[in-house]
Amino acid sequence: MTTPSKPPVIPAIDADEKALAAPFLKCLIRLIRAQDTYGMWENKSDADLLGDFIVTKEQRREIPIIGDPDADVMWRFNIFYTAVGLSIEARTHLVASPITMISHEGFGRVLLTTGRLVVFSKTVRDVHRFGFATLSKLAEAGTKLVDDAIAAIEAYPEVARA
Amino acid sequence: MTTPSKPPVIPAIDADEKALAAPFLKCLIRLIRAQDTYGMWENKSDADLLGDFIVTKEQRREIPIIGDPDADVMWRFNIFYTAVGLSIEARTHLVASPITMISHEGFGRVLLTTGRLVVFSKTVRDVHRFGFATLSKLAEAGTKLVDDAIAAIEAYPEVARA
Repeated sequence: MTTPSKPPVIPAIDADEKALAAPFLKCLIRLIRAQDTYGMWENKSDADLLGDFIVTKEQRREIPIIGDPDADVMWRFNIFYTAVGLSIEARTHLVASPITMISHEGFGRVLLTTGRLVVFSKTVRDVHRFGFATLSKLAEAGTKLVDDAIAAIEAYPEVARA
Repeated sequence: MTTPSKPPVIPAIDADEKALAAPFLKCLIRLIRAQDTYGMWENKSDADLLGDFIVTKEQRREIPIIGDPDADVMWRFNIFYTAVGLSIEARTHLVASPITMISHEGFGRVLLTTGRLVVFSKTVRDVHRFGFATLSKLAEAGTKLVDDAIAAIEAYPEVARA
């Protein structure tokens, strides 16, 4: 039974808070903070640091996909897949190394391998627009990749350790 | 029984001729000639076209490993691994796609995958000096990679088709 005095739930913020508690986002945040050599981000919140990963539909449309992807977007792209690899390692104790091959036009492939097993393989395009609609979507996407990878490792345990 | 009139065998040339008949080198040559859009190499022999793949010990030492690897050496590096992939495909009917991640310092990784199987994985360095001492060494190196990859596919046939 809900009491009438309970404050109204704001779903967006609630979802974001929940997302920030997800192991995948915790891993991503840890990786980002590890690159904060001069302590410039010490006073920033986790949500602030992940802010640039959030690209709304409207923002996406405005990002041109001509020319080289921005260095910052490549940095976020790489750190996202590094976080996926690290999360896999945390849960399976198997090193999962990402390897990305992105052309100057923002088109390419991403692979994650453990041992002789390809746990994840994707053709990517429009890397210029790399981002997620909300923090929850970011957490979901990363968690799904980790879960799928672990399912692949469980399907072929021998190859993942070869 | 050898007849005294037989011309003396020159081992180096003999070995090169034999190397040029190797399926791997034939595949490599085919890939190189496929890029000859304007027919500029039509009058060049196979050995001529492969000439730049040959880097002797002395030449290796003279190539500086500072800065970006040359665009030409990157082209040869990529076409070599593409030829490995294509040779695997010719023998197993499984597509083997190379994926290379080379930093600006000529250090990186090369992977070849078929399905979910990593058939070849190597950390490379000093890509600036990519080359082989002789044509036979080039043929040998490529053939060995293809053989090893096929052995891996035979060891894990299910994963290679996943």
